[in-house]
Amino acid sequence: MIPKSHPRYESLLLREKMVEASKEGILADSALIAHGRGEAFDYLLGERTTFPAKRAMYATVASMLLANNPVISVNGNTTALAIDDIIKLAEVLDAKIEINLFYRTDERVEKIAEMYKERGWENILGTNDDELKYIKNIENPRASASKTGIYNADVVLVPLEDGDRAEILSKTGKTIIAIDLNPLSRTAIKSDITIVDNVVRAIPFMCKIAEDLKEQDKEFLVNIKNDFDNKDNLKESLEQFKVKG
Amino acid sequence: MIPKSHPRYESLLLREKMVEASKEGILADSALIAHGRGEAFDYLLGERTTFPAKRAMYATVASMLLANNPVISVNGNTTALAIDDIIKLAEVLDAKIEINLFYRTDERVEKIAEMYKERGWENILGTNDDELKYIKNIENPRASASKTGIYNADVVLVPLEDGDRAEILSKTGKTIIAIDLNPLSRTAIKSDITIVDNVVRAIPFMCKIAEDLKEQDKEFLVNIKNDFDNKDNLKESLEQFKVKG
Repeated sequence: MIPKSHPRYESLLLREKMVEASKEGILADSALIAHGRGEAFDYLLGERTTFPAKRAMYATVASMLLANNPVISVNGNTTALAIDDIIKLAEVLDAKIEINLFYRTDERVEKIAEMYKERGWENILGTNDDELKYIKNIENPRASASKTGIYNADVVLVPLEDGDRAEILSKTGKTIIAIDLNPLSRTAIKSDITIVDNVVRAIPFMCKIAEDLKEQDKEFLVNIKNDFDNKDNLKESLEQFKVKG
Repeated sequence: MIPKSHPRYESLLLREKMVEASKEGILADSALIAHGRGEAFDYLLGERTTFPAKRAMYATVASMLLANNPVISVNGNTTALAIDDIIKLAEVLDAKIEINLFYRTDERVEKIAEMYKERGWENILGTNDDELKYIKNIENPRASASKTGIYNADVVLVPLEDGDRAEILSKTGKTIIAIDLNPLSRTAIKSDITIVDNVVRAIPFMCKIAEDLKEQDKEFLVNIKNDFDNKDNLKESLEQFKVKG
């Protein structure tokens, strides 16, 4: 039991959640290391959702509402941290959810798929039964995607994505949206929209604004989308980091 | 196999080392998360040993050479990352090595002790057979220490220490020296000397300067030690971090 008075209470709760998920076998071997990196960046960000992050989230929700086939790509870490909110977001945005594991094993895919099904989300893509194709014929496991999901998507939201895969996705012409606490990562730089925030804050925030934006007319959404400049926004995101005593 | 051309090659090698150590059972459940935090801070530091870090290391080596009973406190992470260099440093400084685990289990202590013994370091302290006492009568597992080691030490080097334990140690009047990549951590702030560097670079660097400093006269070492101001040096360490694009 972590005392509520501990200066790192919220962060320690997430840490416990991740350790638990690791024991349950839904995470890759180095997933906890990735979580630790995120923790450090979030710490330097003050563990708050910044204005540039919110702006990126408005652009994200607008883009996904305007999309023909929006897909949320999930892995072990995202699922462990935010499965309920991911399902809620997919519902409100009418988006698909696809499992994409950097270190794919049938067993992990099966376990993660089961978690979505248990919560009533039956149509989970990227499972072992799903038809997977290689993006742009790149015969690399990093490039595999569900035929009805990411392979044919126009907008893909990829929380916590690896740099190699983000690079491959960025070459497809699809709109790639990343959630990444490191604004200097390859994933952050290669994406069309980069949300520099913790997924546990970002996904619920997007659920809320999606409820609002889906009532707006199309022109308004197009304007939000077109007004967004990822390079500028990443620069502003960087400025939010504090490495001062 | 990680290709040498990968932009994060060195860092990925360490990551593999840690995943391996985790599988071997020498790490605590959340040790990989801690490693990930370190990775992120090192990344922002440019993965280099800065001048303030070097200055802190000179003060460390001088303090340990002047000490009556200097002890190096080790845990699973430090051992996994730098065991050979730790033994070398203890030899050149004529220091003791003591196992101190934040989440202590007899099994992990046994495994770690075995690693030191296999490398010819027989007198490893803090083992299951060792006499442990509570520092300042604080009856908390965080406060346990070997009677001939940390309990009676005047200078203690604690790489990768937890904030709770650093706080307890800082109340003992001993000189506490931390190696911590986060210059804002409680451990960094509570210590008398804080080396903001990666242990895999810091320990070998100290082995080198120890060979030099042990040939110098005592007055020279006293001056190095007295010239050092941790607050100023931490401030300078912070300034070394880059969160710019």
